[in-house]
Amino acid sequence: MIKRIGILTSGGDAPGMNAAIRAAVLTAAANNIDVIGFHHGFNGLLDNEYQTLLPQHVQHIIQYGGTILKSARCKALYTSEGAAKAAKALEALQLDAVIIIGGDGSFRGALSIAEHYNGQIIGVPGTIDNDVDGTDYTIGFATAIDTALDAIDKIRDTADAFERIFLIELMGRHSGYITLSAGIAAGAEQIICPEFAAIKPDNLKDLIIPIQHAQLLRGKSSYIIVVAENSYPAGTTALAEALSEALGIECRACILGHIQRGGRPVGADRILATKLGAYAVEQLIAGAHLMMAGEVNQQLSLYPLAKTGDKTKQIDPYLVRWQQYIASD
Amino acid sequence: MIKRIGILTSGGDAPGMNAAIRAAVLTAAANNIDVIGFHHGFNGLLDNEYQTLLPQHVQHIIQYGGTILKSARCKALYTSEGAAKAAKALEALQLDAVIIIGGDGSFRGALSIAEHYNGQIIGVPGTIDNDVDGTDYTIGFATAIDTALDAIDKIRDTADAFERIFLIELMGRHSGYITLSAGIAAGAEQIICPEFAAIKPDNLKDLIIPIQHAQLLRGKSSYIIVVAENSYPAGTTALAEALSEALGIECRACILGHIQRGGRPVGADRILATKLGAYAVEQLIAGAHLMMAGEVNQQLSLYPLAKTGDKTKQIDPYLVRWQQYIASD
Amino acid sequence: MIKRIGILTSGGDAPGMNAAIRAAVLTAAANNIDVIGFHHGFNGLLDNEYQTLLPQHVQHIIQYGGTILKSARCKALYTSEGAAKAAKALEALQLDAVIIIGGDGSFRGALSIAEHYNGQIIGVPGTIDNDVDGTDYTIGFATAIDTALDAIDKIRDTADAFERIFLIELMGRHSGYITLSAGIAAGAEQIICPEFAAIKPDNLKDLIIPIQHAQLLRGKSSYIIVVAENSYPAGTTALAEALSEALGIECRACILGHIQRGGRPVGADRILATKLGAYAVEQLIAGAHLMMAGEVNQQLSLYPLAKTGDKTKQIDPYLVRWQQYIASD
Amino acid sequence: MIKRIGILTSGGDAPGMNAAIRAAVLTAAANNIDVIGFHHGFNGLLDNEYQTLLPQHVQHIIQYGGTILKSARCKALYTSEGAAKAAKALEALQLDAVIIIGGDGSFRGALSIAEHYNGQIIGVPGTIDNDVDGTDYTIGFATAIDTALDAIDKIRDTADAFERIFLIELMGRHSGYITLSAGIAAGAEQIICPEFAAIKPDNLKDLIIPIQHAQLLRGKSSYIIVVAENSYPAGTTALAEALSEALGIECRACILGHIQRGGRPVGADRILATKLGAYAVEQLIAGAHLMMAGEVNQQLSLYPLAKTGDKTKQIDPYLVRWQQYIASD
Repeated sequence: MIKRIGILTSGGDAPGMNAAIRAAVLTAAANNIDVIGFHHGFNGLLDNEYQTLLPQHVQHIIQYGGTILKSARCKALYTSEGAAKAAKALEALQLDAVIIIGGDGSFRGALSIAEHYNGQIIGVPGTIDNDVDGTDYTIGFATAIDTALDAIDKIRDTADAFERIFLIELMGRHSGYITLSAGIAAGAEQIICPEFAAIKPDNLKDLIIPIQHAQLLRGKSSYIIVVAENSYPAGTTALAEALSEALGIECRACILGHIQRGGRPVGADRILATKLGAYAVEQLIAGAHLMMAGEVNQQLSLYPLAKTGDKTKQIDPYLVRWQQYIASD
Repeated sequence: MIKRIGILTSGGDAPGMNAAIRAAVLTAAANNIDVIGFHHGFNGLLDNEYQTLLPQHVQHIIQYGGTILKSARCKALYTSEGAAKAAKALEALQLDAVIIIGGDGSFRGALSIAEHYNGQIIGVPGTIDNDVDGTDYTIGFATAIDTALDAIDKIRDTADAFERIFLIELMGRHSGYITLSAGIAAGAEQIICPEFAAIKPDNLKDLIIPIQHAQLLRGKSSYIIVVAENSYPAGTTALAEALSEALGIECRACILGHIQRGGRPVGADRILATKLGAYAVEQLIAGAHLMMAGEVNQQLSLYPLAKTGDKTKQIDPYLVRWQQYIASD
Repeated sequence: MIKRIGILTSGGDAPGMNAAIRAAVLTAAANNIDVIGFHHGFNGLLDNEYQTLLPQHVQHIIQYGGTILKSARCKALYTSEGAAKAAKALEALQLDAVIIIGGDGSFRGALSIAEHYNGQIIGVPGTIDNDVDGTDYTIGFATAIDTALDAIDKIRDTADAFERIFLIELMGRHSGYITLSAGIAAGAEQIICPEFAAIKPDNLKDLIIPIQHAQLLRGKSSYIIVVAENSYPAGTTALAEALSEALGIECRACILGHIQRGGRPVGADRILATKLGAYAVEQLIAGAHLMMAGEVNQQLSLYPLAKTGDKTKQIDPYLVRWQQYIASD
Repeated sequence: MIKRIGILTSGGDAPGMNAAIRAAVLTAAANNIDVIGFHHGFNGLLDNEYQTLLPQHVQHIIQYGGTILKSARCKALYTSEGAAKAAKALEALQLDAVIIIGGDGSFRGALSIAEHYNGQIIGVPGTIDNDVDGTDYTIGFATAIDTALDAIDKIRDTADAFERIFLIELMGRHSGYITLSAGIAAGAEQIICPEFAAIKPDNLKDLIIPIQHAQLLRGKSSYIIVVAENSYPAGTTALAEALSEALGIECRACILGHIQRGGRPVGADRILATKLGAYAVEQLIAGAHLMMAGEVNQQLSLYPLAKTGDKTKQIDPYLVRWQQYIASD
């Protein structure tokens, strides 16, 4: 029987992490389970930094970005000693289970700890990148799209006013979820992301021909290319320079950066986080171990933590086709 | 073979309708299909108000609320004469098919026209209320949630500062989708919507006991009750007055109203609208008739227009349970 | 010499109050002055609810609406006994001075206390209504305008889509600052506020003629009238009904309500609050008493607390003229 | 007597330019003056690209960023031939006067034209940078502050979650208005702008000591430095790298870029733009020539165009002092 659980947020922070913490704490309280929150991700385990989490500690945090527990990356966990030390900390606090909110990298850390720990471990997918198998969406993804979209809409204003070409680089590590979604939603003229054919210095014409076509045939007053980070070998600024030279028109690069991680979570992220945080506690009570709480086709479901990083989830093929054959025709 | 289609927006406007129009026009153009846009919903058919829609007419409209085609309700269509006249207008313009963007009321209008019209008819679900069967979400719903949420977050600030009780009335006609989603996302202390047990003057204690419980046990500094319109016989303002009297604490009502229909559509609505607008054209080409283009479990799919108003879709039972047993414990 | 001061927020909360508290606390700390924050406005004085405020207590509060000290109205202060008791509380805590953040009603409360208190009292104007003499702008006014504007822009979307007339009621107690500013900024077709000629049931034609004129001559697709609260005897909803009947067109009323008090303060409010909070402490050190810290023509300056409610400040005559003779021509 | 005027937007676009165009067109119409709008700044004069502007052309543009007339920089104007050609175009269209909306660079262009043109010329200050003498604020400045602030608040979330140091570069060409205002409003721990002592590779310790001090003494969980563009010789990214190395803590740079130019204008910009656009027309009627319409101490007033680039306006000394001695203590 579960009497006492730990919870922590790990890796890049994502809007909605606080909503997940709140839901887990309220659900635990309703089931008479005590909750300990560790600070700074796994570092809190290693450094004994933690606090009791009661319902009053999570009042009115649902609307805030970041994470009240702080987050961090934790290199020490990648050694067997580190993992063993973390497991020991969990047992010293008599924790029957622990909830890890983060991405697949954090879940790998959790699996290392599991080798030394007798309690249950469950993951909750929290990352703006959406690159976690076993759930249609990760906590933070919806907010990151809207943050990116808001920025692109603003740049559209100035691009239209100036009849200029802008390249806007979005986050996503090695996946194109944010870029494809924000690009479609912004009506971007072109989208470049890792899942599409790579753009290299020697095939710039694949980018250039549609630009020339659009200006000739459709009288476009602005032209926006959204680019996932890590899409062009020398970086997006270099790509903008190469394009400027090839086209003879000024192309400007905007690197959107860390604003995509913060901000008030949108409704979709708060709701997903609430469901996953609550479901994680309920599934721990039901005995789940080494699983991730996810939502697939509107249904809450479990997925093996060990498979969350397999990268089998695909970006939406309908949107890919729409963008490549219709929108940028 | 489809050579020429009509398109119109009908009923209450919803953020994302412009994105659906744009996607339909671009997809039609890519398939060498001409598009005629009718103004003011079905009235444009009856009054011969329309315009040609080329790709340049839909540039940079994806980010705007409202609808460039205008919308309206149309009583004339509810007579057989009206429907016959509308059908005649479609045929006079040699339209092979027509796309109706609206809710189930608008789809009933489309079905009346179909009795007199030889072309194909397809629906696209556009309403903030989400009360249309055959699609998980309607265009505009996601934006309406975030608009409501933004307002509730603001009222939370002042409720917290003043330690007051607020009742916030949200839209939804006779369904609780917006209210449940926005209420969960806002961390509302109570949620009242048509799908829950009705609140009547003689069972106010069901509302009151949790308020007293929360103040005694949990030291809540504010208390927010979100209420779907049409939930209390005499209206939300009367409910606030009844509560004030019963509790001896000032309870204020806020009727959020029409701001929920407008505003820049969020990413989720723009993406859904883009997919449904494009898919509607593709399915017309494939022969679809008297169907609605929807998305169920991440898959685009068709659903009979005649069944879209059956009200078999349910609000999320997990969220209902969470709210009733956990959040307001 | 000032060693120890109190601070409180009183009356309706306003975005930026937290920024003023933060600036006062940081400025006091830099001058080796201790700060006590009272909770719930003057009630905290009477009920002995307060806390020490150190710089770490005001970290990262500048971006939040509401007030960390809570606010309230306090009827007990309006009796001589209440004021004497409050003064006693200040002296029991050995406070050399107290900062009151609020509107002119709160300043009257402060003046009552002053009759029994030997320390210094300074006011900081915090109210969304901007109806305080001695400062061009009050803390919260700029944010309230933008909140109202955001709502009106959203309603414009739906008004345009439906070609409807909307009446939008804004706050302001008995002044038209918010209404005039938001109305001008929204491009409202008409503005009704206490400073303009009153609209009564028997002169509705003054409203109606411009509407008919606009529709005939200028093909307006929507018509928005912003109305300050307390402008029409029977209320804005009744006014909308009267207009609907007179025009034969549906006119809808939206009562914007309390969302205007909350939300993240905009830059202008955070900057003004920072300056006034800091300046209040500096002026206490310099010996100020029974004054309000304000900003007039970009210059920080003091103004007698006793005159802050004289209502000599005027709404912008240029904007009034523009609206009445040009915008609604 | 003025019968016919031209209007154009020039240089970097700024939110509120559309509001200024609208106000000028409505005011002109009320005075029976025709208006011609040139496209792409001065290029529209040289290339004969223009349109008639009637009140219906400026309906519902007040809420949009960018400029419906498009903007551009125009090198051709810097030659005497270019200026003469522009003047000829104005006279060929029988324009009695022309309104130039832009910054001091655009006003220099206007002065060159004046050498060849018999009509009147008036300027309206539109630039986010606020670096124009003769007006307290330029159109677009208030919106740019809030856009920057929104981004900094988002980065604060992630900086807090990660306990990291961020350097955020804001626009402003060679002035620190945006940076100082946004930095104060965001509660930035440090502000670097051209008006402050320069930061160079050999005096990095001036930056570093306060960081170390804050972490030791005040337990700051995040540290944000806002940096005006052009403040560090090798750029903000290089500065972040230098800091990272010196501190042994990861410091990240965010270059906010062009999102600062776009977006819905905030209320303050719409109101200022409305007043200046209207006032410019009224002053042309009154005979003004080679003047800029500005607002100083809440009063509309004229200022010689030739002096608008003198850079005598200062950033707020009170805020400078506050930041340097109090906020970053």
